[in-house]
Order: sequence, then C-alpha cells, then structure tokens
Amino acid sequence: MIKYKHVALIGLGLIASSIALAIKRKNSNVIITGTSRSKKTRILAKELKICQVFDNIRDTVKNADLVILCVPVGAMSAVSKELKNNLKKGSTITDVGSVKKRVISQINPFLPDDIFFIPGHPLAGTEESGPQAGISDLFEGRWCILTPDNTVPKSEVKKLESFWVSLGSMVRYMTPDHHDLVLAVTSHAPHLIAYTMVGVADDFSKISNSEVINYSAAGFRDFTRIAASDPTMWRDVFLNNKEASLEILGRFNEELFALQSAIRNGDGDFLYEYFKRTRKIRRSIIDAGQDTKEINFGRYQKKSSNL
Amino acid sequence: MIKYKHVALIGLGLIASSIALAIKRKNSNVIITGTSRSKKTRILAKELKICQVFDNIRDTVKNADLVILCVPVGAMSAVSKELKNNLKKGSTITDVGSVKKRVISQINPFLPDDIFFIPGHPLAGTEESGPQAGISDLFEGRWCILTPDNTVPKSEVKKLESFWVSLGSMVRYMTPDHHDLVLAVTSHAPHLIAYTMVGVADDFSKISNSEVINYSAAGFRDFTRIAASDPTMWRDVFLNNKEASLEILGRFNEELFALQSAIRNGDGDFLYEYFKRTRKIRRSIIDAGQDTKEINFGRYQKKSSNL
Repeated sequence: MIKYKHVALIGLGLIASSIALAIKRKNSNVIITGTSRSKKTRILAKELKICQVFDNIRDTVKNADLVILCVPVGAMSAVSKELKNNLKKGSTITDVGSVKKRVISQINPFLPDDIFFIPGHPLAGTEESGPQAGISDLFEGRWCILTPDNTVPKSEVKKLESFWVSLGSMVRYMTPDHHDLVLAVTSHAPHLIAYTMVGVADDFSKISNSEVINYSAAGFRDFTRIAASDPTMWRDVFLNNKEASLEILGRFNEELFALQSAIRNGDGDFLYEYFKRTRKIRRSIIDAGQDTKEINFGRYQKKSSNL
Repeated sequence: MIKYKHVALIGLGLIASSIALAIKRKNSNVIITGTSRSKKTRILAKELKICQVFDNIRDTVKNADLVILCVPVGAMSAVSKELKNNLKKGSTITDVGSVKKRVISQINPFLPDDIFFIPGHPLAGTEESGPQAGISDLFEGRWCILTPDNTVPKSEVKKLESFWVSLGSMVRYMTPDHHDLVLAVTSHAPHLIAYTMVGVADDFSKISNSEVINYSAAGFRDFTRIAASDPTMWRDVFLNNKEASLEILGRFNEELFALQSAIRNGDGDFLYEYFKRTRKIRRSIIDAGQDTKEINFGRYQKKSSNL
C-alpha cells in the first residue's frame, strides 16, 4: 500500500521514471510530479507520460508528501538549496544516491526542522539512462537501503519502508558509513575496474578496436556493460565516496599484485586455489535471487535476437 | 557441410560436448568418439549420449579424420605424447586451447610428418564445465580463430574452416603470437581481474559475505559470473600465456593508478572523460552481434525466473 498521496521526483532519469512507472502500476491515484534541469529530459518525460512535468522545483514539490531526490550525487546540494523554502510541513524527503555519508552532509544544512529526511538507496539500475530507460519492475526483488538517523519518528521511517516494499523492494537499514563501505565493494570498485579494463583495451595500439569488439565474447563484453553506465553519475560517486573506494581499490591492488607474482613465478597451486574459492560466491548470489540461474545470463537461449 | 567422417574428441568437457551436440544437430552420420581421463566424466558423457565413449586415447582416435584436443592447456603435452603413434595417416589434428604459442610448442614435437596440425580456438564458452554443460548452439555466431603455419596444405585448412562454419562459427586467421595478445586483452586479463575483485570481497572482514551476496546487484554480480569459470582451465591459461597477460595487467595497473589519483585529487573532469569514452565500445559490441541488446542482459524480462 502506498501511503503517500503525492510523490514529487527531482530528476527524471532511469530511477525516477522507474519509480513513477512502478507507482502507477501499483496505484493510479497517487499524484506524481517531476522536474529535470534539462529541457530535453522534461519534454521526453512529458511525451512518455512518466508524470506531471514542471519546469521548476517549487511547483514540483508543492503539496507533496514525499519528495525523492533522483539527481546525481554531485547535484544534491544545489537541489536541496532550492527545495528548502518550498517543502510542505511534515513531508518526507528521501534520495536515491549511491553514496550516503557525503550526500547527507550536503542535504541536511538546507532542511527545515518540520521535514523528515530519510536517506535511501535502491540497489537497482541498468546501463541505460534517461526517462526512456524507466522500467516498471526495476525494483522487484532488489534491495533498498535506508540510513535514517534517530531523530526521525519510527512511524515515518516505516511509511517510507512500506513505499519501497510496494514497489517490489526489500528494505534494510544501515549506518551511512557502513552503506558506503558495502557499496564500495559491491558496486563502486567493480565499476572503476571495469571502466579501467575497457579503457586499456581501447588504448592498446597493438590490437585494433575491431579485434577487441569481435573477440569480446571471451569475457571482455561483460565489463563493457558495466562500463557503459552514466558517466556523470559515476564521476560523482567516486568524488563523494573517496575514502571507502580508495580503501577497496588499495586492497584490490595488493591482491592483483599477488596474483601477478604467481603468474610470473609459475605458481599454479596459488592460482588454482584462488580461482576455486570464488565459485562459491556465485552460487550464493544465484540462491539469494540476486542473479539469473541461466548460464551466460541466458544469452544462448535468446540467440536469435543476438545475431 | 561436415567433410570429416569421424571426429575424435580428447576431453569431454563443455567444449567437447558442445562440439558433439553441434555435429549431431547438423549431420547424424558423422562418427563421434571421445574420451576423458576422468572415469566420472566418461560415465556421465555415456549417460548423456554425447558420443561413443572410450577409456583410452588409442581406441578413441583410431580411424579418425579429425582429432580435436579439448583438454586444459596444461594437459596438451601429455595427451600429444599418447597420441603420436595412434593417429591415422593424413588426418587432421586441432585443439581448442585458449593459448596458442605455448600449446603449439607442446604438441608439435610429438606429431608425425603425415599429420596436419592446425591449431584453433573457438571463442565460446559459459561459466559451467563438464559434459552436462554442453550446448548445441554454443558456437553459433561466435568466432573461431585458426593459427596454422604455412606447412599445412591450404585445402586441409579450408576443410577445418568449413567444419567450424557448419557448427555456426565465423573463422579468422592469426599468428599464434597475435592470438595470444588479443586474448590477453579480451579474455585473460578480464578474467584475472574478475577473480581478484571477487577474492577481495570474499576476504574483506568489515563486510559480511551475506552483505556482499545480497547487495551484489549493483555491479559485483557480473564479475562473479566470470570468476565462476573452471579453475584448472584458467590456471593453465595464465601459466601458458604469461608474457602477454603480464603485459596487459601492467598497463591495467598504470591506468588504475591514474584513476585512483584522480579520485584522491578530486579531478572530476578526468574521471568524466574517461567514463564517457567507454560507452562507444559497448555499442559497437552489440552492433557486431557479440552481445545481447537487452539491457542488463535481459534480466528484467526474465524476472519471474530469478526470484
């Protein structure tokens, strides 16, 4: 059950448009308003009938019970500044930023006391961006992490929890610090590494780009999917989760050096043991419903559409 | 058209069983024999009716026109030793090893002059292994690289080319050295990096494994698919393609350090430009038919089976 009568979306990209589509699928009586800084995006969102589109934040959030900030992490501060005198008393504000500690410190100074701020992060997305990328079941079976502090009444937190649950999500609570470290491992470091590998291949002059592209099925192509994600969003993630990202990348460097040494020294036992233990994790992820059981993401079953 | 009357498979894993299934789908008159060092694998292959299964190499290759070595790269030498006095005069021998230069030097010393050796590498596979993992259309739309030297008659090379084409592959020729470098970029380095990232997450004590598993949808899970590949095969790849792998990993380290510096110094422009250029490659891979167009590998379309 969605307990908010009017949800306002700031930003109209993949996540915002997926939220709008998911709400409509669930309950067509909820008023959904939205805005984007980009005129092109606003026009597109209007054409796609994502929600009622306004060209300014003031009109978008007027009378909203729930305001969701769906802008890149680096834009949260500017958006909050514009919000501060326009929020309805007693309304809830949340966000979908991939970084929590730094975002909270950017939003908090601008919020009046009569507003409930409950930081959030739905762990869902695709490599696409923009309002046309919205998917009504994007949050189905995916986790949403909330990181409220203890000043927010429990009833308001539960209300937001039940909102995400109606969109199909499962909700967990964490401290902002712990969230940022968990995401550095499960998302931020893997993205940076994928971007790096694709960058190396793109630059490597002894092999043509068409060779890289044609022969990508041997592993490389899976990296390119991740490395096709929105560049603005990811720039902001790394600028705003600097410490945790660098901590994980530091450990990654150490492990990679150990494996490189093993290759150089011909230490087959070390390599074999390392490669063996990583299979377990894959199986657990599938058992937890967080990836498809189908081999190779089901590429072979859908062969005809690939060719 | 398959121009060989009898194909012998040494090794009965994912690739060998996929070859057998693909041949049978195409032409049921071809005799297919096979063997594996493992009794368990032989029993399984027999139960699954992959091919006629023998418990020794001699009987498997007797009268075969085409012998395909489908064992891990590290086992090629031992297998060739056993083959040498049992091959039919004028038959062709090929392999499916992910490394060419080193494999060729291991096989060559054992081959009699009246045999045609045409090294090969079909760029196809999944994260599964064993005879039960075979897929009849595994090679459909995928590349197969052949690296013959100029002592082999062109007609024999063309015959092997047309064999792979009947299984659905597209064939390209390269020198063994160039093959090993191309694969280091498109396959070997990405695999090592994925194994490393999964190893780091598994080891990181500040976060529980269940957190890594639950929140893997944010990027990490794609790495775990690659890192679930056969450990023996991959150990052998790195031991036998040492130089090219270390060359690419060295470049990867340099680029990763540059990106880590940019994060540390807050250089958003550098990060943005880096992340932007990698999108192009993704699009080219999809246009070349080497990956699915569906976002997120089509995971959302198959939602019900994932949950």
